[in-house]
Amino acid sequence: MKIAIAQLNYRIADFENNLIKITDYIKRGKDEGADLIIFSELAVCGYPPRDFLEFNDFISNCQKSIHIISQLTDSIACIIGSPSQNRNHKGKSLFNSGFFLYKKKIQQVVHKSLLPTYDIFDEYRYFEPNKEFKIIKFKGLKLALTICEDLWNVGSGKQYGQSPMDELIKQKPDFIINISASPFSWKHPETRRNVMKKNCLKYKLPLFYVNHTGAQTELIFDGRSFCMNSKGQIYDELKSFEEDFKVIALADVMAFSKSKKDDFSKEVILKEKEICQALVLGIKDYFAKMGFKKAILGLSGGIDSAVTIVLLCKALGKENVLAVMLPSRYSSEHSLSDAEKLVQNLGCESQLISIEDLHTSGEKTLSPLFAGTHSGLTEENIQARIRAVILMALSNKFQYILINTSNKSEMAVGYGTLYGDMCGGLSVLGDLYKTEVYELAKYLNKDKEIIPLNILLKPPSAELKSGQKDSDTLPDYLILDKILFNYIEKRKGNSELVKMGFEKKLVERVLGMVNATEWKRYQTPPVLRVSEKAFGVGRRMPIVARYVNR
Amino acid sequence: MKIAIAQLNYRIADFENNLIKITDYIKRGKDEGADLIIFSELAVCGYPPRDFLEFNDFISNCQKSIHIISQLTDSIACIIGSPSQNRNHKGKSLFNSGFFLYKKKIQQVVHKSLLPTYDIFDEYRYFEPNKEFKIIKFKGLKLALTICEDLWNVGSGKQYGQSPMDELIKQKPDFIINISASPFSWKHPETRRNVMKKNCLKYKLPLFYVNHTGAQTELIFDGRSFCMNSKGQIYDELKSFEEDFKVIALADVMAFSKSKKDDFSKEVILKEKEICQALVLGIKDYFAKMGFKKAILGLSGGIDSAVTIVLLCKALGKENVLAVMLPSRYSSEHSLSDAEKLVQNLGCESQLISIEDLHTSGEKTLSPLFAGTHSGLTEENIQARIRAVILMALSNKFQYILINTSNKSEMAVGYGTLYGDMCGGLSVLGDLYKTEVYELAKYLNKDKEIIPLNILLKPPSAELKSGQKDSDTLPDYLILDKILFNYIEKRKGNSELVKMGFEKKLVERVLGMVNATEWKRYQTPPVLRVSEKAFGVGRRMPIVARYVNR
Repeated sequence: MKIAIAQLNYRIADFENNLIKITDYIKRGKDEGADLIIFSELAVCGYPPRDFLEFNDFISNCQKSIHIISQLTDSIACIIGSPSQNRNHKGKSLFNSGFFLYKKKIQQVVHKSLLPTYDIFDEYRYFEPNKEFKIIKFKGLKLALTICEDLWNVGSGKQYGQSPMDELIKQKPDFIINISASPFSWKHPETRRNVMKKNCLKYKLPLFYVNHTGAQTELIFDGRSFCMNSKGQIYDELKSFEEDFKVIALADVMAFSKSKKDDFSKEVILKEKEICQALVLGIKDYFAKMGFKKAILGLSGGIDSAVTIVLLCKALGKENVLAVMLPSRYSSEHSLSDAEKLVQNLGCESQLISIEDLHTSGEKTLSPLFAGTHSGLTEENIQARIRAVILMALSNKFQYILINTSNKSEMAVGYGTLYGDMCGGLSVLGDLYKTEVYELAKYLNKDKEIIPLNILLKPPSAELKSGQKDSDTLPDYLILDKILFNYIEKRKGNSELVKMGFEKKLVERVLGMVNATEWKRYQTPPVLRVSEKAFGVGRRMPIVARYVNR
Repeated sequence: MKIAIAQLNYRIADFENNLIKITDYIKRGKDEGADLIIFSELAVCGYPPRDFLEFNDFISNCQKSIHIISQLTDSIACIIGSPSQNRNHKGKSLFNSGFFLYKKKIQQVVHKSLLPTYDIFDEYRYFEPNKEFKIIKFKGLKLALTICEDLWNVGSGKQYGQSPMDELIKQKPDFIINISASPFSWKHPETRRNVMKKNCLKYKLPLFYVNHTGAQTELIFDGRSFCMNSKGQIYDELKSFEEDFKVIALADVMAFSKSKKDDFSKEVILKEKEICQALVLGIKDYFAKMGFKKAILGLSGGIDSAVTIVLLCKALGKENVLAVMLPSRYSSEHSLSDAEKLVQNLGCESQLISIEDLHTSGEKTLSPLFAGTHSGLTEENIQARIRAVILMALSNKFQYILINTSNKSEMAVGYGTLYGDMCGGLSVLGDLYKTEVYELAKYLNKDKEIIPLNILLKPPSAELKSGQKDSDTLPDYLILDKILFNYIEKRKGNSELVKMGFEKKLVERVLGMVNATEWKRYQTPPVLRVSEKAFGVGRRMPIVARYVNR
């Protein structure tokens, strides 16, 4: 039996274009002699469809797509993900299903049992969990079709009471199929392979694993579909971060066996390389799917906007990136020269716009009201907000998307001006701590000095007042980032952090800053997710609360 | 048996102060001779705690609170909500529990079975559903303790496969207790009573229903705890929108019977009155719980900012509200005079700040870049953003919270400037369509003309260019709001709306506007929720998608 894996980039709710793409690949599967073609989870509508699933109109569009696709399955069978209606009149109204289409008919529908409802996932919001298990029979073989999370309840820390494969195995399947929508975080490809390997070993079966690729706003899907033999050794793997297609003979997978026990992938996962590729895809797809071409950003001469613009040029092409230098009276000379050098290295367009005029007008307008007060944070914020006014004007006038350059450390502690430098349609670095931004900068410079060395060497500063440095206000990033990582990613609370050895006062200060600025983060742009816990939809904290707060 | 109902306003994660409050009310219960005191769902930590539930430190604080409270239960028993650990090593790590405390001990822990995971609710994100049912025995009586949603699987449209009371009834309880965290929307009090009445009638038992009061950012809890006899007639009800406490003799409830069949509440629910009270509480608690006193807003002379400021004065006192008039060259004379008259009527402080200087500077700064382009939306947006710069400067300098004045209609279609008039810490009217804002204005004016009549009569305008009116760009609000209501609240899709009789082109235009502006709404402040479907945490739409979009 020859099995085709179609690893595609869908657009949510774009039934017409998704259908065209699916049709093309079914044709290709036929041309290449495949008996069965497999598409990923919820492929007909894209993932995650979120509350579109609550619209009957949307569900009926999914059904129409499935019907049309079924008509293409004469000589080839097809497995594809789509929501389906729960006709039991009990429980949620939908299932997250895998359709088995063959001979122009819906032969069988398999529903997802384990519904991830944590971090960025909300599946129990929409779907009823499956409780009936039946393998698919096709050309004398038995297929155990599972949907993403269905294979994740192995090992320690079991989230669910059951494992669908424990039921399916009783029906003696010949191999496992898993259709997934498994979003990227930089440690996830390895975790994913390990989990799938565990399944192969536990059930002594080969596995065909089919994932999405492409980005959907904050979520990036890295593809990397694969098939494993019954020892969990990777027989073949599809590309990362792009569409790919392969036809694989089941017999070859069955016959395949590696000698070297743990060498389960050809690919070595390098953190910075992974993150760079993911962010580039995230940017590219956000623009493509929003129907925009050009990006604008404020280039300060600091590390964050430098790394951001390099990624933008990689994703969109230098001709589609406009760097705007917006110096104020407090900008240092090196800021401008470093920024200019970077623009030269990249060859993108740039503009120099002084904010002095608007800054002075702002001071004049506010002076009767501010008389007798000391200059401070307010005055600093005004500069950042004036820059946003200019950048947004250019964005509106010439159809640029303004790109946010905040990093995760400053977003965490609220070290940024809301409606100022926190503006933008998309946050590129919002899931990277400051120390990780430096690591990424070094990676981007590995072959050639694109980001001027001085940007990597000088102490970080917002340059909103004379001689300002981040370290005036914030703890050393080396320590700050460790506390933040343990608080945000690892959910370590106050007392646990102190037990870990961090200074009590510092812990309280940092946690206080994070908690007191939830209201700010509520209004920040979507953040491209590359870690296991990014700000945004996957981290839901109350705004009004009191936990190490005041 | 005398039963005390404690309907309180908690602060999320503020264990110390929640404990002080709970302790006080236990004392009061004892003083008034109660045998049992009932607090609401997750009372020890406040509701909704969201991802704080993922912190061990947070859960251990809950456990400490429960232990301390248990030590107060010598002569009085106590039922109170708290998360508890799932020790099964299978499934989610927590339960949403009701603790029965008596004689200084945890006598019994009852877990929630039905976990709302829709709209603003995410309970299956954190909690394992209960599957074991046991009534509580106390002083010769049998209590069926249920937690909020546990009683909501009655009638049509059943979301869950089971109803906990169907199990508990087998153990022949004498009455039902329901501890809730049931947030307000203006139709909800009636729905809630009807659902609870159905339970009383179905199981032929009296019911004690204990709700939260107070607001938690966007969610407003209206209190209205009550007890019903076995016919579902209300014996007694606690106050709406404030803390309240009552001791009720069970025998009196048992003996109580009304003749008039459907008169199940003394209270008539009036939409505008409800919404007004809810928004006032929402504002009040946001400020109190954020630790702020004073509000600032831009007063344009239009209906939205007028209604907002009246509500602010009611919530915070006129002495804590600063109205800022920010006229531009396009502001009409009546805008200023109407705003001034309103300020006079309210007696709050005001400032007049012309944006002309900043506006001219902005034009000057941008003129080399904008040469040869036509003046349009960009130039309009600049004015709105300059206003935001000024308002945020005042907010930062003098510790005001800037209040957003956008209504639901303009938020829906994106008729507002991001980082301009869409700024603010809290959106007061963001869950009211434009037509509802007018209704609320009339209600606020019912005894006395507070909002100058001209504001209600003149056609709505953003006044960002000469002679501008909303109707230049938007459909008539009477039709627009109906389409929006059916799309947003009722999840009617494109084809269904056309079938309902709305013009096809108009439907596509409106839905297109809504869908194309998800990215804007992602960055707007939390919206006080008064409808069944508010923008924000309860409505989760993809930003990058294509459904009637381009």
